Amino acid sequence: MPVPNSVPDIVIGRLPIYLQALTHLAQEGREITSSHELGQRLGISSAQIRKDLSHFGTFGKQGTGYRIPDLRDRLRQILHLDREWQVALVGAGDLGHALGRYNGFKSRGFQITAIFDRDPAKIGRQIGDLEILDVARLEEVIHERGIRMAMIAVPASQAQVVADDLIAAGVRAILNYAPITINVPPGVRVQYLDPVVYLQRMTYYLD
Amino acid sequence: MPVPNSVPDIVIGRLPIYLQALTHLAQEGREITSSHELGQRLGISSAQIRKDLSHFGTFGKQGTGYRIPDLRDRLRQILHLDREWQVALVGAGDLGHALGRYNGFKSRGFQITAIFDRDPAKIGRQIGDLEILDVARLEEVIHERGIRMAMIAVPASQAQVVADDLIAAGVRAILNYAPITINVPPGVRVQYLDPVVYLQRMTYYLD
Repeated sequence: MPVPNSVPDIVIGRLPIYLQALTHLAQEGREITSSHELGQRLGISSAQIRKDLSHFGTFGKQGTGYRIPDLRDRLRQILHLDREWQVALVGAGDLGHALGRYNGFKSRGFQITAIFDRDPAKIGRQIGDLEILDVARLEEVIHERGIRMAMIAVPASQAQVVADDLIAAGVRAILNYAPITINVPPGVRVQYLDPVVYLQRMTYYLD
Repeated sequence: MPVPNSVPDIVIGRLPIYLQALTHLAQEGREITSSHELGQRLGISSAQIRKDLSHFGTFGKQGTGYRIPDLRDRLRQILHLDREWQVALVGAGDLGHALGRYNGFKSRGFQITAIFDRDPAKIGRQIGDLEILDVARLEEVIHERGIRMAMIAVPASQAQVVADDLIAAGVRAILNYAPITINVPPGVRVQYLDPVVYLQRMTYYLD
């Protein structure tokens, strides 16, 4: 069994995509799939899929394919999705409201359990079942509840300060929507979701 | 001068990040920077930055660093951001509204110029200055206006059909927020922004 830390980030990055495809197959009532079928759905070679999965042991048997429920469970386990993760959301603007109302988190392992903003006009109002809390209480609330993941949906000028506070309170994984690179200490993960960066990655290929 | 197509996607993917950092430096009133400083801000090695930029010719002089306005202009040119790109938005739910109201597109090369939904209760209403159009008019409007980029903010079950229609109308670059992999023909680019996938890429590293 290989040491988990030896698995390249890029392989880990593909596992949620495999999980998503398996979920869709299961919803279609399917029970067995193959690396070939997964590859066709995802635009990834079947050899790549088999190689990625081989980091975590043996899945399926040669020629019989993968049992979808088994592979899903195993991927959930590897990705630590066999539990529900609490997530804090900072920023209750348009995007914060959209995230707060999004119903795709809960079924896939995540629940937003605290929302913060600094605007007195927003503090105390609700997004879904949650009251918007004063960002001044961020460290206290996150520390008390043991929250380790957060989404940043504040303007670029505030993102670093918010990240520093989140990390001080115990957060170790940040989804950053603000259009700025944030500096974090070793051991803290950040993923970036500024839509403009992703658009700019495609215009190069358009003439 | 290397052939543009020979530049790896991963290098192109970092250029918008460099551009973002240069924009922040310019906003701070700075005129000169170095690969070392950029690297520190971005958590990327200075050698990597120099190597990435070397794909596109010579920038700056040994020991004197980069002139920020020049490097910004050159990156914008390389990424085809020396023009404004029209973008269609499909889906006028919470996320669609947040994207439609986001003021970070225009200053960085993009403008949403058409919004579509299939809900009769939404069609005809406004998001900012734009009227929500019937998705039945998607191909006609996109083709007429020559729109080549689109954002998909519809449920997973509708994303493939929407993508097919967009591509038939001439779209060649898609930002997909729906939690599903979409199949596209060669020559069409897709970037994925399902927040759950990005959260799931981090939980592996949390215990």
